Amino acid sequence: MRPSGRAPDALRSIRLDINVSKYAEGSCLAVFGDTQVLCLATVEEKVPPFLRNSGRGWVTAEYGMLPRATNERTEREASKGKQSGRTLEIQRLIGRSLRAVIDLGGFGERQIRLDCDVLQADGGTRTAAITGSFVALHIALAHMRKLGAMPAMPIKDHVAAISCGIFQGVPVLDLDYAEDSNADADANFVLTGTGQIVEIQGTAEKKPFSDAEFGQLFGLARKGIGELVALQREAIRKAG
Amino acid sequence: MRPSGRAPDALRSIRLDINVSKYAEGSCLAVFGDTQVLCLATVEEKVPPFLRNSGRGWVTAEYGMLPRATNERTEREASKGKQSGRTLEIQRLIGRSLRAVIDLGGFGERQIRLDCDVLQADGGTRTAAITGSFVALHIALAHMRKLGAMPAMPIKDHVAAISCGIFQGVPVLDLDYAEDSNADADANFVLTGTGQIVEIQGTAEKKPFSDAEFGQLFGLARKGIGELVALQREAIRKAG
Amino acid sequence: MRPSGRAPDALRSIRLDINVSKYAEGSCLAVFGDTQVLCLATVEEKVPPFLRNSGRGWVTAEYGMLPRATNERTEREASKGKQSGRTLEIQRLIGRSLRAVIDLGGFGERQIRLDCDVLQADGGTRTAAITGSFVALHIALAHMRKLGAMPAMPIKDHVAAISCGIFQGVPVLDLDYAEDSNADADANFVLTGTGQIVEIQGTAEKKPFSDAEFGQLFGLARKGIGELVALQREAIRKAG
Amino acid sequence: MRPSGRAPDALRSIRLDINVSKYAEGSCLAVFGDTQVLCLATVEEKVPPFLRNSGRGWVTAEYGMLPRATNERTEREASKGKQSGRTLEIQRLIGRSLRAVIDLGGFGERQIRLDCDVLQADGGTRTAAITGSFVALHIALAHMRKLGAMPAMPIKDHVAAISCGIFQGVPVLDLDYAEDSNADADANFVLTGTGQIVEIQGTAEKKPFSDAEFGQLFGLARKGIGELVALQREAIRKAG
Amino acid sequence: MRPSGRAPDALRSIRLDINVSKYAEGSCLAVFGDTQVLCLATVEEKVPPFLRNSGRGWVTAEYGMLPRATNERTEREASKGKQSGRTLEIQRLIGRSLRAVIDLGGFGERQIRLDCDVLQADGGTRTAAITGSFVALHIALAHMRKLGAMPAMPIKDHVAAISCGIFQGVPVLDLDYAEDSNADADANFVLTGTGQIVEIQGTAEKKPFSDAEFGQLFGLARKGIGELVALQREAIRKAG
Amino acid sequence: MRPSGRAPDALRSIRLDINVSKYAEGSCLAVFGDTQVLCLATVEEKVPPFLRNSGRGWVTAEYGMLPRATNERTEREASKGKQSGRTLEIQRLIGRSLRAVIDLGGFGERQIRLDCDVLQADGGTRTAAITGSFVALHIALAHMRKLGAMPAMPIKDHVAAISCGIFQGVPVLDLDYAEDSNADADANFVLTGTGQIVEIQGTAEKKPFSDAEFGQLFGLARKGIGELVALQREAIRKAG
Repeated sequence: MRPSGRAPDALRSIRLDINVSKYAEGSCLAVFGDTQVLCLATVEEKVPPFLRNSGRGWVTAEYGMLPRATNERTEREASKGKQSGRTLEIQRLIGRSLRAVIDLGGFGERQIRLDCDVLQADGGTRTAAITGSFVALHIALAHMRKLGAMPAMPIKDHVAAISCGIFQGVPVLDLDYAEDSNADADANFVLTGTGQIVEIQGTAEKKPFSDAEFGQLFGLARKGIGELVALQREAIRKAG
Repeated sequence: MRPSGRAPDALRSIRLDINVSKYAEGSCLAVFGDTQVLCLATVEEKVPPFLRNSGRGWVTAEYGMLPRATNERTEREASKGKQSGRTLEIQRLIGRSLRAVIDLGGFGERQIRLDCDVLQADGGTRTAAITGSFVALHIALAHMRKLGAMPAMPIKDHVAAISCGIFQGVPVLDLDYAEDSNADADANFVLTGTGQIVEIQGTAEKKPFSDAEFGQLFGLARKGIGELVALQREAIRKAG
Repeated sequence: MRPSGRAPDALRSIRLDINVSKYAEGSCLAVFGDTQVLCLATVEEKVPPFLRNSGRGWVTAEYGMLPRATNERTEREASKGKQSGRTLEIQRLIGRSLRAVIDLGGFGERQIRLDCDVLQADGGTRTAAITGSFVALHIALAHMRKLGAMPAMPIKDHVAAISCGIFQGVPVLDLDYAEDSNADADANFVLTGTGQIVEIQGTAEKKPFSDAEFGQLFGLARKGIGELVALQREAIRKAG
Repeated sequence: MRPSGRAPDALRSIRLDINVSKYAEGSCLAVFGDTQVLCLATVEEKVPPFLRNSGRGWVTAEYGMLPRATNERTEREASKGKQSGRTLEIQRLIGRSLRAVIDLGGFGERQIRLDCDVLQADGGTRTAAITGSFVALHIALAHMRKLGAMPAMPIKDHVAAISCGIFQGVPVLDLDYAEDSNADADANFVLTGTGQIVEIQGTAEKKPFSDAEFGQLFGLARKGIGELVALQREAIRKAG
Repeated sequence: MRPSGRAPDALRSIRLDINVSKYAEGSCLAVFGDTQVLCLATVEEKVPPFLRNSGRGWVTAEYGMLPRATNERTEREASKGKQSGRTLEIQRLIGRSLRAVIDLGGFGERQIRLDCDVLQADGGTRTAAITGSFVALHIALAHMRKLGAMPAMPIKDHVAAISCGIFQGVPVLDLDYAEDSNADADANFVLTGTGQIVEIQGTAEKKPFSDAEFGQLFGLARKGIGELVALQREAIRKAG
Repeated sequence: MRPSGRAPDALRSIRLDINVSKYAEGSCLAVFGDTQVLCLATVEEKVPPFLRNSGRGWVTAEYGMLPRATNERTEREASKGKQSGRTLEIQRLIGRSLRAVIDLGGFGERQIRLDCDVLQADGGTRTAAITGSFVALHIALAHMRKLGAMPAMPIKDHVAAISCGIFQGVPVLDLDYAEDSNADADANFVLTGTGQIVEIQGTAEKKPFSDAEFGQLFGLARKGIGELVALQREAIRKAG
């Protein structure tokens, strides 16, 4: 039995709210149950040094968590003077995931930076960040296209992410914190709209797991990501 | 004429939304027009070293701004590895302001930490942070009191803050960013519910100003803070 | 009764010694009783990025305190690896105060940097730093003018600063450390030679204070700053 | 055709040299072709704060790369003043992988720290580090056991790691740098001696990949890890 | 011919002014020509961790230079966020030199910290710092002894330091900046009052030098240090 | 009697292994008994800012020690976020020593950077680093010359280094850690192939020492460096 009472293959209540920022070129508040991640896209008219004069653009991400986004307050990274390994690992993952579905040659020498800030955390912040960032990025690119920056949308496919895990022996979808902190194993799946693999990160938290178990998690992820992609389509349609 | 069309002595539309966090002991989202500051109070069962075994508590604050809270994105302080002078100055001000109305001897050897994070900035973030933090702090203390941590509320008075400035020669209340960035002078006033002075910070941005002008700014501040204190009372009443 | 035996409206013994550095383009050792602040002006033939190709110059300041400038040694900021919030706040104040009386369009694309280093601290280091920096800056500008860098002195007025506070219920001028550390409230005033306001920073250290008390502090400050400006004039006259 | 001429399912020439340090309690130089990683185990008679008085121990890892371990020199992390996101991500992975096969309750309140330093890098440094660290850890635990620190070896299974990837459309085992930098996709597998999954990290470097391709990579990994575990057994046997 | 017109074996005009601080337990302003180093001794009632419960004390030093102590302003180390290699090297030298003549077992578990801050630099700042710090340390120890902290002075000998160098082919004593920046070779000598060697640091700045040249530098240093020790004795005698 | 049983004037077993890196333009593993220092030379096609457009090159060095190179593990500098004073001091010494025998005008506007990483430490790491770096630098320059970067080798002489010390009253050559940590005094000598002085660093570790003792140390150093230079010649000859 899951602490939330959800069925093993049930997502939490998901919302992808658009246009939540007065300033950002694209914005999406991704809400997965009690997890809230604000995803803001900023278009910059310059690229990192390794791309100068290449005619290509870049997509990157930064991730942060408000100190009291969690039940136990964590120290503010700006005050500690450095970002944790966990933060750096997550923001690298978000950037890689988005770049996998974007045609970097299709929007000029520009950088789009996604700021993913966790306002409240109840498990699955990285998957909410990827799922919401895709929407914010799509809106920012559509905005640029309307301004004439490029002839066509440089997006090859959707990308969304979800976690799965083995909780009390049962494979379940979309772990909340109560599950995540007690799972035997968990895995984050980042898939495209057509079901291709972008990233898989599976970790045995308590004990190693088998091929068969991994297969079950993968199956749950496919189902969940199908639902997330449908929600992304709806959010993008509303954004016009 | 103000860019927003407001009368010189008119506040922006203000909201002090309570209980906006699942975890924090006290919370308030302070909204001053397009400025949004999330104020979360965390109760910690320990005090800074200089207060150990003193029987006294402490109230402190941290301030941060999301990178794209502003029109031009600013670099993430966690990524730069240090907080700016502006950030440190503001969080010191918030802490001092709150301590001025709290009986630090009245809630045991505990620290209450206010995290003030600017989700969106359109001028006046420090005054919104002080005004909202008082509400979050009040809720946290009431919560502790219900748990039996102390016999009476250790709050001596309200505290709220507002900015005023001279814009195109006219003294105006509650500057938004369009005004703030072009003001001849501005001043932040932190006053108590009974109108006593907690902090005054007046600065000639473009040219020195006179006693008379300073007096006019002070008068506007009194009016605005009266209205803010009324909103605080209502928010606290709702919180029960 | 003040610990020093001074009358409530009496400054400490003040000295503004000029030409105390072999190298700096302008220099002044500001001595306020036992407080000693070395103010050295450096002329740099470049401006910060935001002023490049603007035809305008910049004036900025840095502030530091020797570790044993105080009764209790404080840790060396260079060794800790960062400047404290207090340091950053003070150096921002010094820079703003000086820029308020300088015509930044009148000395070309140059930056003048004021290094204010506290050799000994007994209260009032920021006000001594502002008062002495004005003299060092004046000498540096006069030096540049003699070299033909500009046709006229780009100085619109004097600027000087003093602290006042309520000590044992009595408003007093120019707090020393014994007073400052026990004041009910204190305020720093930065005024021009003609009595205009540049900066006011009033803080209730122990309890909020009233308009009337604030008015008394302001009156003391006017008197003190009048005396400081007279001393500045004399120092500048000696410098030739 | 692989740049090295290897068959798609062929490992590079592998060596796990033991007892390569005069000081470390356990040591192994893991050589995968031209990749050399020195793995040194240090036993510390204390645990991290969260384990004090728990009766349990901890295993952790740090990872570094000599500046000229690579063809293009990279800046020294000690000189830059911080470890990169990549470094933090890898050392977290090594620590998690080792802990998955160790009984943390079986060697007292001690920490064993693995220092994995890359002397030369030609792809696969993280997998060499995991594979060699297991040997160094085993030797250190055997050493402690001989000293009477515990009655039995607290090791539940072997753990080893290998990379696989899709290079020019062909799934291949144990990527060297020439392959790694041009792979369409790659994946790191960390498996136990009995073939259970500890970690899987799959990434689409150039384009998303399919389930079937992922399955082929997994198959190659099983084969390679079988061979690595055999080499580990031999190294441990030699160590006595 | 030396730029200053001094004879090859002539020191600059030297002053060791005592009691220049209101707060420090011992103080000395060491003036070597235009070089001025403020040496302040602070007595701390604690020792570094490696000496706890050893019954022994410690003497250490920190070194800093005001940004405009030199002709070209150098960036403030507190602002850069780290001390340079040169700073760390000099402060380690000062500490070692003082410890060589102090009986660390003779003043209890205390640390005496010498802050050596260069107010103005014209060559020889490290030698002035050592020479002046010895005086400040002596005064602080005498002060402690008067308070009954120990029965006898724990000082075994004087220690003083001077630089020598080969300038335009001629061995000269006590280099000023004009000489130091153009010397073929230079050496810093730290000797005791009885002429024993504490530290020697010889460096070929432009070209390697011979034994014979080194011997000449050593001879000059003996003469100079004899004079410095006499000045130290006089300063200490004045201090009572 | 020396702990190692060596005669007072005997070096440890020394090896200078060349071509130990797949990537570096020059490489040498310097082995002095149980001390192992990997010296890798990297040629960079740019110079530090102060040499731009000067037609001159630069030689510099960085030094690091693996955390478990020593009997007691030391914290990783990359993880602490800064290099120690000892590290900075040693790498400055290595760079100065090499530059003393190189014609910086003879290899164009290039920088050669020596990375000296201590794999295992048993005393004398800085002297092994200098001695090995000279070989690595020579190989890198010969490599550049073969590529036609310059007509002649810009090397004026050999440079090598050795430590000496007074151990249990006896002057001895090439201290190992057991001696170094208990020496009364020690000195590092950096000499050229023709016996000229490049650097001398003598330090009284326990008590000041005399001229005569210093002379004996110098004599031992001459003998040891003669042997090291012969080994360098042989290594360079092998490198071709």
